[in-house]
Amino acid sequence: MSDFFQGLAPVRYEGPDSANPLAFRYYEKDRLVLGKRMEDHLRFAVAYWHSFAWEGGDPFGGRTFARPWFDGGMEAARLKADVCFEMLDLLDAPFFCFHDRDAAPEGHSLAESNRNLREIADIFAEKMEKTGRKLLWGTANLFSNRRYMAGAATNPDPEVFAYAAAQVRAVFDVTHRLGGANYVLWGGREGYETLLNTDLERELDQLGRFLAMVVDYKHRVGFQGTILIEPKPQEPTKHQYDHDVATVYGFLRRYGLEKEVKVNIEVGHAVLAGHSFEHEIALASALGILGSVDANRNDYQSGWDTDQFPNNHPEMTLALYHILKAGGLGSGGFNFDSKLRRQSLDPEDLIAAHVGGMDVCARALLSAAAIVEDGGLDRALAERYAGWDRPDATEMLGMDLGAIADWVERDGIEPEPRSGRQERLENLVNRFV
Amino acid sequence: MSDFFQGLAPVRYEGPDSANPLAFRYYEKDRLVLGKRMEDHLRFAVAYWHSFAWEGGDPFGGRTFARPWFDGGMEAARLKADVCFEMLDLLDAPFFCFHDRDAAPEGHSLAESNRNLREIADIFAEKMEKTGRKLLWGTANLFSNRRYMAGAATNPDPEVFAYAAAQVRAVFDVTHRLGGANYVLWGGREGYETLLNTDLERELDQLGRFLAMVVDYKHRVGFQGTILIEPKPQEPTKHQYDHDVATVYGFLRRYGLEKEVKVNIEVGHAVLAGHSFEHEIALASALGILGSVDANRNDYQSGWDTDQFPNNHPEMTLALYHILKAGGLGSGGFNFDSKLRRQSLDPEDLIAAHVGGMDVCARALLSAAAIVEDGGLDRALAERYAGWDRPDATEMLGMDLGAIADWVERDGIEPEPRSGRQERLENLVNRFV
Amino acid sequence: MSDFFQGLAPVRYEGPDSANPLAFRYYEKDRLVLGKRMEDHLRFAVAYWHSFAWEGGDPFGGRTFARPWFDGGMEAARLKADVCFEMLDLLDAPFFCFHDRDAAPEGHSLAESNRNLREIADIFAEKMEKTGRKLLWGTANLFSNRRYMAGAATNPDPEVFAYAAAQVRAVFDVTHRLGGANYVLWGGREGYETLLNTDLERELDQLGRFLAMVVDYKHRVGFQGTILIEPKPQEPTKHQYDHDVATVYGFLRRYGLEKEVKVNIEVGHAVLAGHSFEHEIALASALGILGSVDANRNDYQSGWDTDQFPNNHPEMTLALYHILKAGGLGSGGFNFDSKLRRQSLDPEDLIAAHVGGMDVCARALLSAAAIVEDGGLDRALAERYAGWDRPDATEMLGMDLGAIADWVERDGIEPEPRSGRQERLENLVNRFV
Amino acid sequence: MSDFFQGLAPVRYEGPDSANPLAFRYYEKDRLVLGKRMEDHLRFAVAYWHSFAWEGGDPFGGRTFARPWFDGGMEAARLKADVCFEMLDLLDAPFFCFHDRDAAPEGHSLAESNRNLREIADIFAEKMEKTGRKLLWGTANLFSNRRYMAGAATNPDPEVFAYAAAQVRAVFDVTHRLGGANYVLWGGREGYETLLNTDLERELDQLGRFLAMVVDYKHRVGFQGTILIEPKPQEPTKHQYDHDVATVYGFLRRYGLEKEVKVNIEVGHAVLAGHSFEHEIALASALGILGSVDANRNDYQSGWDTDQFPNNHPEMTLALYHILKAGGLGSGGFNFDSKLRRQSLDPEDLIAAHVGGMDVCARALLSAAAIVEDGGLDRALAERYAGWDRPDATEMLGMDLGAIADWVERDGIEPEPRSGRQERLENLVNRFV
Repeated sequence: MSDFFQGLAPVRYEGPDSANPLAFRYYEKDRLVLGKRMEDHLRFAVAYWHSFAWEGGDPFGGRTFARPWFDGGMEAARLKADVCFEMLDLLDAPFFCFHDRDAAPEGHSLAESNRNLREIADIFAEKMEKTGRKLLWGTANLFSNRRYMAGAATNPDPEVFAYAAAQVRAVFDVTHRLGGANYVLWGGREGYETLLNTDLERELDQLGRFLAMVVDYKHRVGFQGTILIEPKPQEPTKHQYDHDVATVYGFLRRYGLEKEVKVNIEVGHAVLAGHSFEHEIALASALGILGSVDANRNDYQSGWDTDQFPNNHPEMTLALYHILKAGGLGSGGFNFDSKLRRQSLDPEDLIAAHVGGMDVCARALLSAAAIVEDGGLDRALAERYAGWDRPDATEMLGMDLGAIADWVERDGIEPEPRSGRQERLENLVNRFV
Repeated sequence: MSDFFQGLAPVRYEGPDSANPLAFRYYEKDRLVLGKRMEDHLRFAVAYWHSFAWEGGDPFGGRTFARPWFDGGMEAARLKADVCFEMLDLLDAPFFCFHDRDAAPEGHSLAESNRNLREIADIFAEKMEKTGRKLLWGTANLFSNRRYMAGAATNPDPEVFAYAAAQVRAVFDVTHRLGGANYVLWGGREGYETLLNTDLERELDQLGRFLAMVVDYKHRVGFQGTILIEPKPQEPTKHQYDHDVATVYGFLRRYGLEKEVKVNIEVGHAVLAGHSFEHEIALASALGILGSVDANRNDYQSGWDTDQFPNNHPEMTLALYHILKAGGLGSGGFNFDSKLRRQSLDPEDLIAAHVGGMDVCARALLSAAAIVEDGGLDRALAERYAGWDRPDATEMLGMDLGAIADWVERDGIEPEPRSGRQERLENLVNRFV
Repeated sequence: MSDFFQGLAPVRYEGPDSANPLAFRYYEKDRLVLGKRMEDHLRFAVAYWHSFAWEGGDPFGGRTFARPWFDGGMEAARLKADVCFEMLDLLDAPFFCFHDRDAAPEGHSLAESNRNLREIADIFAEKMEKTGRKLLWGTANLFSNRRYMAGAATNPDPEVFAYAAAQVRAVFDVTHRLGGANYVLWGGREGYETLLNTDLERELDQLGRFLAMVVDYKHRVGFQGTILIEPKPQEPTKHQYDHDVATVYGFLRRYGLEKEVKVNIEVGHAVLAGHSFEHEIALASALGILGSVDANRNDYQSGWDTDQFPNNHPEMTLALYHILKAGGLGSGGFNFDSKLRRQSLDPEDLIAAHVGGMDVCARALLSAAAIVEDGGLDRALAERYAGWDRPDATEMLGMDLGAIADWVERDGIEPEPRSGRQERLENLVNRFV
Repeated sequence: MSDFFQGLAPVRYEGPDSANPLAFRYYEKDRLVLGKRMEDHLRFAVAYWHSFAWEGGDPFGGRTFARPWFDGGMEAARLKADVCFEMLDLLDAPFFCFHDRDAAPEGHSLAESNRNLREIADIFAEKMEKTGRKLLWGTANLFSNRRYMAGAATNPDPEVFAYAAAQVRAVFDVTHRLGGANYVLWGGREGYETLLNTDLERELDQLGRFLAMVVDYKHRVGFQGTILIEPKPQEPTKHQYDHDVATVYGFLRRYGLEKEVKVNIEVGHAVLAGHSFEHEIALASALGILGSVDANRNDYQSGWDTDQFPNNHPEMTLALYHILKAGGLGSGGFNFDSKLRRQSLDPEDLIAAHVGGMDVCARALLSAAAIVEDGGLDRALAERYAGWDRPDATEMLGMDLGAIADWVERDGIEPEPRSGRQERLENLVNRFV
């Protein structure tokens, strides 16, 4: 045991009335919700990056956190792994997620970097075996190193494409070996800073080809998990190709990959793209590409990725409601792609932040399940579209424009508007939050 | 002749040094630019809606303009048509565009509305014959009447779908008869106010079916123009399905219509969607769906559709540059989907605004053509991606992930970053604006 | 009794578990919260404008509501007054608010308009007398008529200034006579569309003088209420002078009115200005100008004023918390400057929307009071700033820069960062929402 | 001579037709514009921070630039100073600006840091003496070090206030000694992350006291320059107290400092606050606090501070027009608070970016001067407000509300709207850009 979390005990469920700041008030992993254990609904994951690798810097200031593993090579990486699994234990969180560079330091060559990664993966494997913790997803960091400054797969230099491919292969292998439930690609540099130096069509084709290679590789190695793209509209680049769910869907269709790849939707990325989180979930569900979720929140008054821990229960409820209606996340889960505020220096802050985030999601799950069970929203929806379930409506959809037009003019059709009842439906939701 | 523009003479080209506020300083329709007449590059259209139907209202105040055709039925509509063609003459603008409801008043039934429309269309036809003016596109207003408050094709009531189909048929026929170069669909109400009362998948399918019907109808009646969708992210609804170019592309692929339908890109809509105008053009071009342009600008500090006349020459130059690189707009053109500020009461304001807008576009065309002729941007681009034109790069794209990874690790590939030269390219552009 | 709300019964408190969509689940007017009746904390008002005058239009479509009082002159206005007071009774809402033009139709001259207003005011007075309902505030509509298109007090035409002054006098008199608790000025057109035609300094001085006249008038007639400015950053104009609380404060200081005038803070206006609602409240409180509140919400994905009914309980709790810490709103209250969605056609929607809004505020009040009673937030704050309560800190504030610098260098002062505990405080709040 | 700019020659004016990417096409320092030398109008400054200290990092990736002075202590700092003055020579830029931490490395104590700074200041002094280059302003970096993570003057820990005071004293002394024309305070951490841990009133008072100390110190040491606050709405913090010009004005009034302190307006900060750059200039001018300018641009599609070099000539023209109308910037100037894109690795990029930025400003100055000389805008303004220059208007401003109202009602005043002519004025501006 490291002494990082010294003095902090495992977090327990104590119920809604508990005043213990380090207890769960809603998250009770074995509680059945709509017939499934809470833990199996939510599949919480801790993010290596934000929780253990991020130093508290921002564009105007450097490191604020003082973690004993920050300055050091592989030894520090081993300590970091210890602390990560200690936190998983404290929180009783079933999953974790990582980028290669979070877990192990970059070496002087890719070969060395990969050796470092595999060495830490050995440690992960051992700890996972011992603790039963699992890997929600792995991913390759194709954005921090300056070699990727102009993109990875979309780089104007084919050597960078190759390097990225090699890096992904290594992380994919590790993810496969650790039994990862998914493999994620976030194209943080797959975009542009200015169209003046960018060949859009070329870069999209490169990105399509790269993704197809990863899909082929998955099948070749027999990986059973899901490949996920994580949409984000911008930041770090001015414009990123995986802008939002709708854009990713078009991209997948263009390259024939819409059956192979799903999306990992992040709350904050949805907001930065001008959408609500529940929009992105509902749309992905409608398009058949809902994969997983990066749980966080974005400050509504900030124009950049703030990656805060989720804390608004009614908002999260709407997201959970659409996830439940979609039949759940399948191999996906709730990864806390959330970071402490840079003033939150204490180890206790790290635990408390996760406790708060987990509880908001758990409470939202309970509320969403109650809405589902109540059935009022579903009934209102069915009633609203009832006309479309009538045979004449179906028949009309098979007619041509002219025939419909003739019918409307002949019969003097004049539809009568009906209330959309928005406020009443919002009140209905508020009964359960 | 009406006396609306009394005292205003036809606008002439007088060259850059002219101080005449009602002269063109750049737009010289017969001037050859890259071997094509300026008029044929730009294909300017006047928008019936903003110029003749809009009354100067906003959400906090009513009509400010006092036009003699505002209160009155078909007689007023005839006067409006006269004034429109008088303005086309004053500006020597080759095209106009209209919604059915701009041109003719809505009747007590669709049949009567359609009769009104056809009667005005007769007048249009006669005036077009006489003056040589042409129709860039027609479109049906499926958003103003309360029957469409919950959508047209995506309405939960199938009768509204039918009504919309009938309305489109009528406008399509008129557009066809007037030799329209395109037919436009803007889905102002095809979206939602709240997901709580919305079945996304159902509505998308309705919209896909509706569009397919229009495409079928086009082929049946032998319309040679292009069907265009006009993306907009929101407003009036909270979320519109034709959000931006990328979204429309995915939608067209989903319903197998990507060869049949193109996009009409509006500057202000691009901005509201979080994109630059040139981004939307370049993306549509890369995806093969660039159709036409709604020229205007959006105030960068306002979060709604301001539809101002374009007036920033360097920005418009970037758009024209991408249009030239795409080989032009084909059947499309530059429609001024721009409205006067509501304090701009005078007929002279209407003429001056168009003169300013046409001149900004013409000047941008000259600048863009100069950039093309200079070739510096193209050379920089070719040089930047030169690596991808080498045989080994092409070969690599055919390899699988593992083989690439083995090669990278084996050969110790370490790409060397090169400058993206953004500021230098921006300076290069500034030489021509 | 009109038959507008036919079939709808007075709304009663039924407790959190009620499934009755037209019952209060939290608002219990006589319940004591921190020693004060809920009704006296919240002082709810219904807004004449949104609830009875707005027709459901937006920039892309016209009237959707069918209210029997929409087309008609004074008779319709009397019916509207009846319905308003019927709604106050149904909701048991203690206050209402109005613009002159909501209440009575504009006449052919200001004199006629004022007569109309006074006639309706007679009706109000009688109904208020009979029912005990009160006026939270009155205000003059200085933005809808085209005469105000370029501003009221800030108009380049002094006759418009004069007209506005005359209109305000009339509404002020009516407000005074009806015992209004406040008088509000919202400068919807006090701003500019373009700096090119605007003399900023001149217009600010005009606005300052206008406000000073109103203040003088208040004292002359002995009005005991508060004069309130309602900040909004923009819309309808591109830029409004009363941008946000901080801007209004500077304006009041410039014209020496900071002791005379307070602010009426609207949730949606705060959001449009890039602030959280609670920021504006906390800032106004710190600056000593917190007056009243326009309760609504703005869609976070829309860039215009959406004026929706509030429905997010945790967000409203933060606002209430700052109001409680400020000692309450004094003569102010919670005016529902909220409008139905334009698809919400039914009278029941109007009642339900207010029930939902009142309940969200009432629940937020309970949560905020619980946070106050818990004291944890206050203790954390006191602890955080404890250093400033020490005598040496106070002493330092009296020293000069050089002396402090000498001390720091001499003693080698090096402060030690302490956690800001943000996530822990957020969790603490979540215990009470 | 260092060899950093090896191969690059001093930049010369070659006129608008020059195709030399490293020549000025508009900036001709001795050219008289409205009777003043261009150099004296613009007073260009190079920013030490962006040009020499920034490493090319962003929140998702580290250093991309490889500058020989990045890793090293005082020796590297001396090299950096050499390169800075070499660049000033290459550009013939008259001024530079610096933060203490850009110029010299932070030591183990404040005393050591200050010694480092003074040692570099000696070098500056010598180089300035030799080359005639001048200091536009100095400033203390009160935001990068973790000690300032919760604010400098507004920190909850009084020791941080003291440390900040000591740091400012040192930089102020150096600025004074180097004959700086101004001293700047940018409150990057003077704001909050969450209101939950913030005492707004207390922090504002601390900030007011701090500023007053600096003002007192200025007078004590006899500094003749101007003290400037640089407004920014947010980033790094969620909310910064010096939000925008209007907010700073109110703050200065609150603490009685409005005659002592002016604003340094940054283009990108204006945009992030929801304003146009020219708005902030015009407002500061109207309020009497226009000080200096940080020239850059913010990407309109990015929600964070992009600090790009200015490149839009029409936009910059509007700003220059308002500066000319304000009588110029006095002791202020145009500091390029602009940074290279992180892919712009080459020394040539640094020179080219400044050349482009200087040329855009110079061209804008010429355009703005032409507008001034033309006089059309001024005449339109005078005509628009002409009514206010009439004696009866002045008289009215002295009347009370009741008297005005009586007059309006009695005489049946009904103002007649006149066109605001916005598009015509925009066209007029376009004649000169």
